[in-house]
Amino acid sequence: MALTDLEIAQATEMEPIEKVAAKINISKDALERYGKYKAKIGFDTLNALKDEDDGKLILVTAINPTKAGEGKSTTTVGLGDALNLLNKKTMIALREPSLGPVFGLKGGAAGGGYAQVVPMEDINLHFTGDMHAITTANNLLSAMIDNHMYQGNELNLDPERITFKRCLDMNDRTLRRVDIGKGARVNGIEREDGFNITVASEIMAALCLAEDLMDLKKRFGQMLIGYSKDGKPVYVKDLKCEGAMAMVMKDAILPNLVQTLEHNPVLIHGGPFANIAHGCNSAIATKAALKMADYVVTEAGFGADLGAEKFLDIKCRKAGLHPSAVVIVATIRALKQHGNVAYEDLKEENVQAMLDGCANLAKHIDTIEQFGLPYIVAINQFESDTDAEIEALQNWCKENNHPMSLSQVWAKGGKGALDLAEKVIELTDQPNQFAPLYDEKDSIENKIEAIATKVYGAKGVEFSQEAKEQIEEFKQHGWDKLPVCMAKTQMSLSDDPKVMGRPEDFVITVRELRPSLGAGFVVALTGSILTMPGLPKHPSALDMDIDENNRITGLF
Amino acid sequence: MALTDLEIAQATEMEPIEKVAAKINISKDALERYGKYKAKIGFDTLNALKDEDDGKLILVTAINPTKAGEGKSTTTVGLGDALNLLNKKTMIALREPSLGPVFGLKGGAAGGGYAQVVPMEDINLHFTGDMHAITTANNLLSAMIDNHMYQGNELNLDPERITFKRCLDMNDRTLRRVDIGKGARVNGIEREDGFNITVASEIMAALCLAEDLMDLKKRFGQMLIGYSKDGKPVYVKDLKCEGAMAMVMKDAILPNLVQTLEHNPVLIHGGPFANIAHGCNSAIATKAALKMADYVVTEAGFGADLGAEKFLDIKCRKAGLHPSAVVIVATIRALKQHGNVAYEDLKEENVQAMLDGCANLAKHIDTIEQFGLPYIVAINQFESDTDAEIEALQNWCKENNHPMSLSQVWAKGGKGALDLAEKVIELTDQPNQFAPLYDEKDSIENKIEAIATKVYGAKGVEFSQEAKEQIEEFKQHGWDKLPVCMAKTQMSLSDDPKVMGRPEDFVITVRELRPSLGAGFVVALTGSILTMPGLPKHPSALDMDIDENNRITGLF
Repeated sequence: MALTDLEIAQATEMEPIEKVAAKINISKDALERYGKYKAKIGFDTLNALKDEDDGKLILVTAINPTKAGEGKSTTTVGLGDALNLLNKKTMIALREPSLGPVFGLKGGAAGGGYAQVVPMEDINLHFTGDMHAITTANNLLSAMIDNHMYQGNELNLDPERITFKRCLDMNDRTLRRVDIGKGARVNGIEREDGFNITVASEIMAALCLAEDLMDLKKRFGQMLIGYSKDGKPVYVKDLKCEGAMAMVMKDAILPNLVQTLEHNPVLIHGGPFANIAHGCNSAIATKAALKMADYVVTEAGFGADLGAEKFLDIKCRKAGLHPSAVVIVATIRALKQHGNVAYEDLKEENVQAMLDGCANLAKHIDTIEQFGLPYIVAINQFESDTDAEIEALQNWCKENNHPMSLSQVWAKGGKGALDLAEKVIELTDQPNQFAPLYDEKDSIENKIEAIATKVYGAKGVEFSQEAKEQIEEFKQHGWDKLPVCMAKTQMSLSDDPKVMGRPEDFVITVRELRPSLGAGFVVALTGSILTMPGLPKHPSALDMDIDENNRITGLF
Repeated sequence: MALTDLEIAQATEMEPIEKVAAKINISKDALERYGKYKAKIGFDTLNALKDEDDGKLILVTAINPTKAGEGKSTTTVGLGDALNLLNKKTMIALREPSLGPVFGLKGGAAGGGYAQVVPMEDINLHFTGDMHAITTANNLLSAMIDNHMYQGNELNLDPERITFKRCLDMNDRTLRRVDIGKGARVNGIEREDGFNITVASEIMAALCLAEDLMDLKKRFGQMLIGYSKDGKPVYVKDLKCEGAMAMVMKDAILPNLVQTLEHNPVLIHGGPFANIAHGCNSAIATKAALKMADYVVTEAGFGADLGAEKFLDIKCRKAGLHPSAVVIVATIRALKQHGNVAYEDLKEENVQAMLDGCANLAKHIDTIEQFGLPYIVAINQFESDTDAEIEALQNWCKENNHPMSLSQVWAKGGKGALDLAEKVIELTDQPNQFAPLYDEKDSIENKIEAIATKVYGAKGVEFSQEAKEQIEEFKQHGWDKLPVCMAKTQMSLSDDPKVMGRPEDFVITVRELRPSLGAGFVVALTGSILTMPGLPKHPSALDMDIDENNRITGLF
């Protein structure tokens, strides 16, 4: 029987983290160790790196995810290992997993098979505590807001217009909408509130886009908490708790160093979801990796319509990053699902359905071309893929002039992506004309329309009455000259999760807008997307256990 | 100007934690380091200790706390340092601070002046993440309960009788009572819930009383989550998520090693409040310390009516510990407050008020005598104490045959408690007749009455109608043969926080009972005590900051 990801990870002998750090010339003293195999890279070291030259940045993205799995993290890790096998000094930069999906359905986010990041259990559980620090900073602010109103309300805050919500790193649908302060007067002022999952918190977004701790503190100060009873915006700086919030984040702002199964260095730092947030690891980690290595392989969440768009339009724009190449991951299984094959039937060969499903891949390729970036399609091979399917897909790529490579990293680790790695190196040697898709100084409507039509392939955008009013209001407050972070289902190019393949002739509905002034963008909620997920009928947590030898089972 | 606690801590050069570990024969490899100055002691090491002889256990307790401060943690740390100065191999075992009071009013809990535990900032913030792990395990269970009801409710759980609550490590009064699952049906089943502060969570109590991770998992399984619609108790094991909860706690169960300013070893592990929980650090840490050292100085929260009573009746009974001596800390300032001097007037000499306040001290001495333990009064000296006051207090002790010692650890560190340390050593050389105050097989009413009359000095106990019904119900379920954990204000011997000194002729009102089956006790809520505190008018968080050199201010 095949080993599980967890069993493969547990069977690997890791190298002490100082040995991994030595490969990128980071001395033992520069590390804040968390056990033997995890470390944060200290401030002084990060500062000292600033004069180094930058390496080349490679983004890994994918088609729209399906239940069949694409293996984007797996490919990212395998490609990093392969580049190292080719003696290219390479680092990998990933997001931190959220506990919500770990206990829910999706599982962790540390790759799979022989292309994993370890220690897998720790990374998927509390890791170095960054998520918990974000939850704490978020809920400290919430407690301070409600306490302020209870203790006299000098800022004249309107309890019915507090826009900042509480958060938890958990899939917990019952916390989406709550009434707080119920019961006696000593329980505070009653009002409606809600919890986001921590990865959708503005604190997370601000962390991931901040330059350093002082910049993060400034971003906290700029965050909107709500409105006064006379309609004026009230910010965190008015409440004066950005100092305490920054203090809470003093360790969380440092990137975390771990290793692949092949002992290559990986930075894992920050983890916003790509559907309800901006979907990229921290700018601090990406920039540090570029200083330490010649090649940096990073990943953005879900399909190119979400993670890659935000990576290129928000993160690269704001952090001044210039990517050198993009890898677009697909699997034959997932392409068949986009070609309308039921999950149960994916084992059966179906060349035509796969070719139908390529319409989804083609749209994401088109998106990357619009950004002016060279790309390669990486087919993450599964055992069930038939020769006929592989050949048909290779032919499709050839006919359409799409560079491609078959990747076998799940089964072989870095050795399974040597061809991909060589082709990626060639791509990065070409100059490119990367540019974001829209001008951030354009109107909110135009920016959203640009994303919807150019990236999703929609014919237009419909704004709800609420959204229209919000756009007007944001304009008055001067919050409209920011990039837009779309909140949209990851399952479809459209805002309807049930529509697979490449939908056409559809409209994107923008339901609500939220100013995320600390992050520096405006969030647009489309369709029925929610910022707090729920657990499934059979949560993964039910199958998790730990035994008397401290061995974990059921984590994946 | 005098230095703040934080400035003194920041000015100290710490020793690398492996050097501190070496003093108690713990090798570098046995440590899971968290940065350079914190470490967890690994499983294998803890297991290997089991055959070692036990050292002597010294409990530090105090009079009822006042705004003036008693310095119980400070005395605990100073006494530990003094014993080490006398070449006694000594460890200190303390609780982990909660972020609630850190952001609120009380501040951290790492001692003060020159008797502190460091790194003070880390200990008072996220430390090694134990609190966050507890919060996660707690809220995972809550999410699983609500998801179970939403996804078909096979266990037939009654949404109106879910007794297990959510938690946050924050002072947040508006979360005491909340309505969850509001809005659309996709937001889950609407019901009333509430949040406890994490330190009052049953998860925390179970952690602190568990023998090891497998015992903790078993305790999680035993926890009550509520009742079915036909009135039957439903436990965590029925929901099958004790495995995932134990997995979440895999690192949190290991004790944390840090150092005093004088580089002596300290274990800090587990941190239940002593008013709304059982108020002692983990049994795992205390037992490990007893194996590693010849003397262990530990502390129980608030006055002897709360922390010490629970330490002796719950922790020692359940963990099989036999203390050798008790130190009862008082300050002249606090005694004056118990003698009805206003906080503003404490600087002025007032011998008579101090002697009046000694009635409070006398009651706590009486309590310790009832437990059959030798004791010493430690007067934690302040600069403002006058010679006349000190002399009067010394005379009061002499006249009443109370051993005592003047302690100057705040100003002098271990050197300030050499006399106290020598006298404590003498006490521990005597055999003693320690026994808990009540038989745990007695009725709930009798156990509570024993504590109220013998420890608080009450003339009796009044049970609310709800409490009476609960006692009947607990009896039917067989939950009545457990120790009782009293939830009572720390400010007074009575259940009314405004009554100072030694109240007489009063009755304790028991409002509500909660079965804490994973912890192994029944909680009795008295007076108007709440298990989620609020922030004050001017929370400490408003004065906290961190600068570009990573220097924290406002933490105390």
